[in-house]
Amino acid sequence: MQFTADQIAALVNGRVQGDGSVTVSTLAKIEEGHPGAISFLANPKYTHFIYETGSSVVLVKDDFVPERPVSATLIHVADPYATIARLLEMVAQMSAPHPVGVEQPSHISPDVTIHPDCYVGAFAYVGKGASIGEGVKIYPQAYIGDGVEIGEGSVIYPGVRIYHGCKIGKRCIIHAGAVIGADGFGFAPVDGIYHKIPQLGIVEIADDVEIGANTTIDRATMGATRIHRGVKLDNLIQIAHNVEVGENTVMAAQAGVAGSTKVGESCMIGGQVGLAGHITVGRDAQIGAQAGIPRNVKPGSRLLGSPAVDIGEYARQVVYVKNLERLNSRVAALEKAAKK
Amino acid sequence: MQFTADQIAALVNGRVQGDGSVTVSTLAKIEEGHPGAISFLANPKYTHFIYETGSSVVLVKDDFVPERPVSATLIHVADPYATIARLLEMVAQMSAPHPVGVEQPSHISPDVTIHPDCYVGAFAYVGKGASIGEGVKIYPQAYIGDGVEIGEGSVIYPGVRIYHGCKIGKRCIIHAGAVIGADGFGFAPVDGIYHKIPQLGIVEIADDVEIGANTTIDRATMGATRIHRGVKLDNLIQIAHNVEVGENTVMAAQAGVAGSTKVGESCMIGGQVGLAGHITVGRDAQIGAQAGIPRNVKPGSRLLGSPAVDIGEYARQVVYVKNLERLNSRVAALEKAAKK
Amino acid sequence: MQFTADQIAALVNGRVQGDGSVTVSTLAKIEEGHPGAISFLANPKYTHFIYETGSSVVLVKDDFVPERPVSATLIHVADPYATIARLLEMVAQMSAPHPVGVEQPSHISPDVTIHPDCYVGAFAYVGKGASIGEGVKIYPQAYIGDGVEIGEGSVIYPGVRIYHGCKIGKRCIIHAGAVIGADGFGFAPVDGIYHKIPQLGIVEIADDVEIGANTTIDRATMGATRIHRGVKLDNLIQIAHNVEVGENTVMAAQAGVAGSTKVGESCMIGGQVGLAGHITVGRDAQIGAQAGIPRNVKPGSRLLGSPAVDIGEYARQVVYVKNLERLNSRVAALEKAAKK
Repeated sequence: MQFTADQIAALVNGRVQGDGSVTVSTLAKIEEGHPGAISFLANPKYTHFIYETGSSVVLVKDDFVPERPVSATLIHVADPYATIARLLEMVAQMSAPHPVGVEQPSHISPDVTIHPDCYVGAFAYVGKGASIGEGVKIYPQAYIGDGVEIGEGSVIYPGVRIYHGCKIGKRCIIHAGAVIGADGFGFAPVDGIYHKIPQLGIVEIADDVEIGANTTIDRATMGATRIHRGVKLDNLIQIAHNVEVGENTVMAAQAGVAGSTKVGESCMIGGQVGLAGHITVGRDAQIGAQAGIPRNVKPGSRLLGSPAVDIGEYARQVVYVKNLERLNSRVAALEKAAKK
Repeated sequence: MQFTADQIAALVNGRVQGDGSVTVSTLAKIEEGHPGAISFLANPKYTHFIYETGSSVVLVKDDFVPERPVSATLIHVADPYATIARLLEMVAQMSAPHPVGVEQPSHISPDVTIHPDCYVGAFAYVGKGASIGEGVKIYPQAYIGDGVEIGEGSVIYPGVRIYHGCKIGKRCIIHAGAVIGADGFGFAPVDGIYHKIPQLGIVEIADDVEIGANTTIDRATMGATRIHRGVKLDNLIQIAHNVEVGENTVMAAQAGVAGSTKVGESCMIGGQVGLAGHITVGRDAQIGAQAGIPRNVKPGSRLLGSPAVDIGEYARQVVYVKNLERLNSRVAALEKAAKK
Repeated sequence: MQFTADQIAALVNGRVQGDGSVTVSTLAKIEEGHPGAISFLANPKYTHFIYETGSSVVLVKDDFVPERPVSATLIHVADPYATIARLLEMVAQMSAPHPVGVEQPSHISPDVTIHPDCYVGAFAYVGKGASIGEGVKIYPQAYIGDGVEIGEGSVIYPGVRIYHGCKIGKRCIIHAGAVIGADGFGFAPVDGIYHKIPQLGIVEIADDVEIGANTTIDRATMGATRIHRGVKLDNLIQIAHNVEVGENTVMAAQAGVAGSTKVGESCMIGGQVGLAGHITVGRDAQIGAQAGIPRNVKPGSRLLGSPAVDIGEYARQVVYVKNLERLNSRVAALEKAAKK
């Protein structure tokens, strides 16, 4: 889908400055702008980027006056941040399929509470006592276990499995094949044989969480495995029992978090990262791809490597290891000289 | 769920020594006890732990007499080990849903052998000639291929896929989204183009195996990929074709085992570990998280790192790498001194 | 399944030289031959292997005359390469189940184009406007989104999910639980809150591609995530949005490719490898298991390690790190000597 600056201005009740016929089809940060993208300027700290951005259109405040020429078309609005969010929503609304109603055959147990404005696809299963909020979309072949609660506006894609008793917040998106609430990996070894420890807890997912395809989040042994508001998990991630993931933390694909670990707010966890069990990762930590985290992480840390170290130290380690051949030669030369 | 020591004693026909009103809600090893947990003392070697355990309740032998004060409430029983196992089973029985009967619509081919005391959920598919033992639970949307055999008491969670001809033992638990018996990754490259090698074997899973959500176990090229009795596999694990995993081995999430590798009995494989193909891992080996195993592993080894080395050597390597900056300075100082 | 050399010769219209009663049950490269395997000799460069191969049977050209004794039984055919391909196909035909027709209940939207010679299993869902080519097999519980196109002869195993608008080529095989076309992981952070960037593109999979169980391939933000002809992806692989994978590239299980990365033709990517986003991997690159690739890779590179280096350098690094204890001792000895 493409929109002209004029069309966007009409949609958001804005005022165009510049060429209203330029078209955009995606969003970019103002500092990473490129032709065909729309950006926005909300924070005055970023104002200097507007003179060099490659984006075709930038949303700016009503009263913004450029001090130098700007190549992008500007659209003046009352609140650029709120406007971009509304725009994103509108585009998503336009681009996604909008299935409605209850397709047959589907299985909805008689004592389910389900808002009339929901989509339930064919071959979906909703267990006893489940509660499904307004506007929820349950795609074909999804499984909603007994007593599961799903908040309004959430989207459950095909083949998602939510085990009994788990809770999903509002406006969540759970992609195909994700499994929420399977048993945690808990066994009591007795004479070398592993006896299952019943996993009696649940998974609680707060509002505005997105969960990637085939990601797995295990139920707690007791209590709840908690995914807090605004968390975004990519595909094929493993979240073990009793883990907690703080608000607005993002995790890239194939990362894994072992049992009982607490990840703070606003962290960024790279792809294929592994976090050991029973540790705490402080807020705002950034952990690079493939890192291995064996112990607690301080807030704001930037780590890389396995076992992970500070990102600067990691870069130096890599160089030192690369130069080991030369270091060995230097030592050999010293030894030779010493022998004389 | 919570139980008092008195309630437990009544359930297991035991004798309480100490405060019968303390409550427990989980299980812990005696050496890792904590308030709210029940432990047991079966092996006399562990007797000293009873005086320091944090657990609220400990199951002990009929004739056990403490030599010093014990803060935990004791419950005397004939066989603490058998009792704890029975308790776990009772709790699991109480906490899990107990679906029964055959829900409609489900697809059961006419020549299927299925015990009358089974659960088959809606939208489940059971292929021709499959054989389903007593008490098996097949949850909604599971796929049981042609000729598959499932032993008594096994639980197949929603959306599990078992390809044709595979065999599942008794009392197995297979979690949602697991795929058993997809084709092994076998191709014959001819002039740069990969031609599929038919994967004609099966997967054989023995008794008492638990398989995590979205784990994949490929069928053998010929013969069988074998998961032996008591193995516990976590989520998102990859087991390639012709692999064998020995009895009572446990594997944490996201581990991967390449083709034809044999893992011995009672091994512990950490999360995100990778085992190369065509190797043998000896019994009782312990391999730490994220390790990479390129070659055979001796029984009882404890390995870490990629490529993995003995855990002690690994710890030393990490320290030496950390100190490379200082080592370089020391060499530079020697060089400077030598130049004088 | 086992075949004698005589049976195979009859099937492919060949001429037996040697013992026609030997049996084979699998395929091997001539240089990796073993008893029970059939190999073929198409490229004269490999002729010397025929005198030492362990294979029981070798397909050779009509006019091939061995210069020395050969222990394998030879089958002479016009075109050994074409014959082996045909043989593989015949075996696959014989060994796989051959479901046909449309099982009920399944959900096929009225405006779907579907060739009469297709299999659609029970509980499968085919969305509006989808187009399904001749001979396609859609197994039970698969989900084919609105507008999806599937080329002739492709096999979609149980529980595969293909989101709306994606395109699958001819003769593809997609294993159970794979998810094609879920949203790419794209968010615009605004004041620490992540706003979803609509993922408006698709996934395009060319002909002769095989995709493993529970692998995930995300749709592009705009345009298409592309998997080119002949690519073979193992299980549990993550392919992020806007990635391109070149012709005849193979990737082992649990590898991950981050957003917008281009992988060239004929690459071999090992298990658990991670490729960073926005990089280019040149054709014919070989990347060993667990490697981490943070930047562009030249064609033909052979890399290992994280961060990855040339495979020879990697081997040296491993040795130098192993010897760090000794290097430290040598430096300490020099320091001691210098102090005298």
